[in-house]
Amino acid sequence: MSNDRHRGYRGRALEVLKSFGVGVWGVAKVHTARGTFEGLILPRSETFDDLHIVLKLDSGYNIGVAVDTITNMTESGIRKADYRIPEKEVPRNEELPDVKLFGTGGTIASRLDYRTGAVIPSFSPGELNGAVPELASICNLDTEKLFGVFSENMAKDQYIGTAIAIGKAIEDGYKGIVIGHGTDTMHHTASILSFMVQGSPIPIVMVGSQRSSDRPSSDAALNLIHAMRTAGHGDIAEVLVCMFGPTSDEYGLLHRGTRVRKMHSSYRSTFRTIGDIPVAMVNRDDVIPLRDDYLRRRDDRKVTIDAVYDERVTLLWFYPGMNPDIMKACVDMGYRGIIIGGTGLGHVNRPMYEAMDYAQKKGVHVFMTVQTLWGYVQMYVYETGRELMELNVVPTANMMPEVAFMKLGWVLGHTDDRDKVRDMMLTPIAHEITEREPHDGYLIYQGGIPEVEEFVAHSLK
Amino acid sequence: MSNDRHRGYRGRALEVLKSFGVGVWGVAKVHTARGTFEGLILPRSETFDDLHIVLKLDSGYNIGVAVDTITNMTESGIRKADYRIPEKEVPRNEELPDVKLFGTGGTIASRLDYRTGAVIPSFSPGELNGAVPELASICNLDTEKLFGVFSENMAKDQYIGTAIAIGKAIEDGYKGIVIGHGTDTMHHTASILSFMVQGSPIPIVMVGSQRSSDRPSSDAALNLIHAMRTAGHGDIAEVLVCMFGPTSDEYGLLHRGTRVRKMHSSYRSTFRTIGDIPVAMVNRDDVIPLRDDYLRRRDDRKVTIDAVYDERVTLLWFYPGMNPDIMKACVDMGYRGIIIGGTGLGHVNRPMYEAMDYAQKKGVHVFMTVQTLWGYVQMYVYETGRELMELNVVPTANMMPEVAFMKLGWVLGHTDDRDKVRDMMLTPIAHEITEREPHDGYLIYQGGIPEVEEFVAHSLK
Repeated sequence: MSNDRHRGYRGRALEVLKSFGVGVWGVAKVHTARGTFEGLILPRSETFDDLHIVLKLDSGYNIGVAVDTITNMTESGIRKADYRIPEKEVPRNEELPDVKLFGTGGTIASRLDYRTGAVIPSFSPGELNGAVPELASICNLDTEKLFGVFSENMAKDQYIGTAIAIGKAIEDGYKGIVIGHGTDTMHHTASILSFMVQGSPIPIVMVGSQRSSDRPSSDAALNLIHAMRTAGHGDIAEVLVCMFGPTSDEYGLLHRGTRVRKMHSSYRSTFRTIGDIPVAMVNRDDVIPLRDDYLRRRDDRKVTIDAVYDERVTLLWFYPGMNPDIMKACVDMGYRGIIIGGTGLGHVNRPMYEAMDYAQKKGVHVFMTVQTLWGYVQMYVYETGRELMELNVVPTANMMPEVAFMKLGWVLGHTDDRDKVRDMMLTPIAHEITEREPHDGYLIYQGGIPEVEEFVAHSLK
Repeated sequence: MSNDRHRGYRGRALEVLKSFGVGVWGVAKVHTARGTFEGLILPRSETFDDLHIVLKLDSGYNIGVAVDTITNMTESGIRKADYRIPEKEVPRNEELPDVKLFGTGGTIASRLDYRTGAVIPSFSPGELNGAVPELASICNLDTEKLFGVFSENMAKDQYIGTAIAIGKAIEDGYKGIVIGHGTDTMHHTASILSFMVQGSPIPIVMVGSQRSSDRPSSDAALNLIHAMRTAGHGDIAEVLVCMFGPTSDEYGLLHRGTRVRKMHSSYRSTFRTIGDIPVAMVNRDDVIPLRDDYLRRRDDRKVTIDAVYDERVTLLWFYPGMNPDIMKACVDMGYRGIIIGGTGLGHVNRPMYEAMDYAQKKGVHVFMTVQTLWGYVQMYVYETGRELMELNVVPTANMMPEVAFMKLGWVLGHTDDRDKVRDMMLTPIAHEITEREPHDGYLIYQGGIPEVEEFVAHSLK
């Protein structure tokens, strides 16, 4: 066996590979105490530990298998693969719009990481152009890495940093902005940017991918193409999430930053507009609006960057039998704002009233949302709702719990005055509260609009 | 003006009604500091306060309007209505199955409450037969009021009481059980009953209504008819939720107790099977299974009632920027089990790791679910997930957060041993964990199964 067959492995891991006669690029079946895994043995960086073997599963995921749990391994063949993405620089085309692509981390800009055997956040402009040559025919791409974090680690500093970077890019004259972002909390970031960046003259398009670009089923390239099309050529100057459409891999959907949520842990069609229809559909060539109430691209509009955020906010998801102790502890620990994800029309159990009262007496701002996700808080219907409102628990119409949470952090960055906080929370800025939810905005978006049907038919040709 | 025109009103409320020349059963427009409301002025009980006027909105909802906020009222006509439901006793029909109907409170068994101007939990067997005469042709109905609570107040005592009552009804020889329940937390109760009541010989059908039975658009009668059909004649001996179907008011859907969730705050088609297709469809005449993996009705099977519950469990819904202080406070306050609603495939931010470690050191049981609701926790994919597992954070496959929360309370009623708790949590009892989620189980259930199409076509005839 050549050294190449154990590339990167050492110590215990190398011993185990050798003992079973299995090596790098081997199509292997690995029996462990936790079950049997089948896949391709990947090489590892030598700087990593010697306790895991990296296996690329048929699903495309890479897992690290602890060698001490391995009871047996067999190899049925060898299938060498090259996951490296070639770098490619492209000259500027004067006829195409300049688009700024910000990287924050996440799968969209990831590649195989031999060090950990998993996907890590990374970002290389040349790689992007190399991997997705179509991008060069859509726009001139300038890339800038803002952060390199898993999206679950995005927080105050990153939100403020992104908003300021957006302001700078607009000032620099870019015709559109694309933000590569991990999908886990893309909707949280989209909603906070909808509040921090108001009246943008150009589209601000968040994009990610559910499957890393080395996987055959990856949505990375298509989502990027759609996002670049939207940012460079679209007319919708709002904060948008651009991801895979629900029924076809031929189009993407553009969701409003305040009305979108991740609804599936692994599907590519995971992002859904909640309580409304999406703003637009997009394919390689066109952005087709599905509504006309959006902010138009206008070069002379001056953007407002209002990048403040107070982290002393929490989201409590109500459950039956809930005890007031947790909410009271939040008040005692200094939280200034609390979003409740209530049941039904915005309800909590009677024992929680004591905590609501405690919160209001300490000047903590409490707002009610519904954990059904779809539909409105309606606290006038039942006497219990009216009692809660007397305790200064404020209903937030159809603002989604996660959006209300992000907005409250932003509002408390401005003021701690009860009336002002309430006013700001209840005054819609970016469609986070809407007057009505259309029937075809419930659950999956199913079309029914002639333009959509046409668009789908056209895309499938 | 006769006294009847101010029935129940006194003090300030009476003064205001008189000053604007408006009375009970008046079709009124009420201008207030909070906006203008249109509807029917309802009578009030004299035992209630004198600070509110009760208005029945055109939507069917009743609201209490604080008289001191009223700036003007006008009346355009009078429309007296009678919301009393006639009582009707029905003789037992030897040819029909005996079904036990338990009441717990909630809209299904509610009527207009003149005392509060809102819907309160109440229950009268005679009223049900009077209101829904079809019930008498489906089964012999015995009713028993277990509790009279808003469903958000259901908790340990009610869960145990309901499970024991179910055991007793099975012992008494009933052919089916229907449980009337408020819709807010019906899915929580359905899941805990799925664990507390195992191997039932007969169907256990939970039912509610999104609109009270005095409203023209009420789903109360149809849902009750469907539930009675399912309990008395259906073959599915599981804990089911029976509610309005998604696209037609001609059929209902039967959802598994552990795979169902309330997804809209006000729609009648609010209950959805998550991550799977429903168990069956039901109309007035038939129960049509959509799958064959259900437990069959079998008179000789002995039910197991395992009614234990430990309330020292909480559900923490992760959000970006989450600080470990809340989770650590939960550990310090004596919580024994924590369900995390994580983002993506089951992630939290890095600062939370400290709280996870703190919890494991104190012997607190921590389980990971996904707040996307659809899809599986997959903590092997990213290094961060593997690190969390090393902190004894246990992934729960595709168990929904609310279901995992209810199950952990039940499991901790049995044992506090780490391995046993983990084993019980990960061993499916009632399909709370499934091997795969079918593609047509994502978001709305859209059919595609020939039997379903036939059934719908048949129902619409």
